[in-house]
Amino acid sequence: MTNTVITISYDGTAYSGFQIQANANTVQAELERALAVIYKEPVRITGAGRTDAGVHALGQVANFIAPFTIENDKLPHALNCLLPDDIVVTAVHDAEDSFHARFDATGKLYSYSIDRALHPQIFRRLYTWHMPESLNLDMLRAAGKLFEGTHDFKAFQAAGATITDTVRTIYSVSVTENRSDKILTITYNGRGFLYRMVRMITGTLIRVGRGKLSLPEVEAALSGNNPSASGPTAPPHGLCLEKVFYKAH
Amino acid sequence: MTNTVITISYDGTAYSGFQIQANANTVQAELERALAVIYKEPVRITGAGRTDAGVHALGQVANFIAPFTIENDKLPHALNCLLPDDIVVTAVHDAEDSFHARFDATGKLYSYSIDRALHPQIFRRLYTWHMPESLNLDMLRAAGKLFEGTHDFKAFQAAGATITDTVRTIYSVSVTENRSDKILTITYNGRGFLYRMVRMITGTLIRVGRGKLSLPEVEAALSGNNPSASGPTAPPHGLCLEKVFYKAH
Repeated sequence: MTNTVITISYDGTAYSGFQIQANANTVQAELERALAVIYKEPVRITGAGRTDAGVHALGQVANFIAPFTIENDKLPHALNCLLPDDIVVTAVHDAEDSFHARFDATGKLYSYSIDRALHPQIFRRLYTWHMPESLNLDMLRAAGKLFEGTHDFKAFQAAGATITDTVRTIYSVSVTENRSDKILTITYNGRGFLYRMVRMITGTLIRVGRGKLSLPEVEAALSGNNPSASGPTAPPHGLCLEKVFYKAH
Repeated sequence: MTNTVITISYDGTAYSGFQIQANANTVQAELERALAVIYKEPVRITGAGRTDAGVHALGQVANFIAPFTIENDKLPHALNCLLPDDIVVTAVHDAEDSFHARFDATGKLYSYSIDRALHPQIFRRLYTWHMPESLNLDMLRAAGKLFEGTHDFKAFQAAGATITDTVRTIYSVSVTENRSDKILTITYNGRGFLYRMVRMITGTLIRVGRGKLSLPEVEAALSGNNPSASGPTAPPHGLCLEKVFYKAH
């Protein structure tokens, strides 16, 4: 009975998100199905957090109590042979009994990728939002800075969300443009995020970059005085959960 | 009636190849379907060459006689709105009446991409052959050099091919390793290629890199004395038609 931690990458295109739900294709269900084959009994995993339908991950983390011991360097290959091609376990390690992938996470790093080429780049189309229109990157960066720090992000969560504590902390929002491959990447490093918050901030930043929204309007949305200045929600396929942070062991 | 040349990129995953055939999903059929909508009559295109089922392209070329004139900078967008997401027309230009995309091609550039990471890289999996095993790149490069020049490539075409003139010229075979993204790329620049020739050469080079085949054995295959030293055929999804060359206008 070992508390086992797995790092998972997946292409979210075909899934209704990470977290298991009835009558839907989920990454968690695929992982639990593969683990049940290996351990010959049901295994329930705990993910570091949900990702929405269509959102990708390079560094999702989950833990589970393994019924018996399998060498950690053998488990990824065994799992990957059983998993569909769009889910890949990239690492396995043991943790203390008390480790919990969600409660113990101290931060998350998300990237949002935007294809700036005139016509969609065929091998990137599933992983980028195609946006060939001109963007003012200085304004976009300045708007990103407004989101850094601790704010009430009430205007930046999905409509109908029931969470009442909407104060979150974002450590950094950085915008990098790769001129050779024409990909613009917005990286969000934060303590935690509300439902759809990264995609709503991204949609807001793009509106600023296109000159359709001013920095004072964004500030008003952040201070709760103009919620309609937030969004729209950027499409899911540009978003990727890059990494989940934990305290050093 | 303008002879119109289009450059096409596609993700070959879902297609039975470029060239139109009965009862199969092909890139050509999708293009002709979109062109028929735009021009309101059947339009037959001529591709620079076939690509096999599952093979990708960044720079496939085709030409067709346009029934009437549409501005060249408007046509890609119009076509891309009608085409499925995995086919993107990236450029359009007019050509002389005599231009023929296949007969006038003077060379082709193919790339074969190999994912060298221990576990498959999720966003590259559809476009690379996953090969984490150790490879001797010096040997692989030396084997690649053997294919440069004009040779009888009889041992390097698909079984059952009916072409009798199997002499072809390869200008260069280059092997580049990107250590940061762990992708090994073999690039083939040649006058023309037999059916499956690039994939059979790639399979042969990998066998050499893995120490399972010697350079003299490859030379023997090339000189017709040991056809069994060729291949196996590398999987289609690592292959991409990068560019088709034509004489300057």
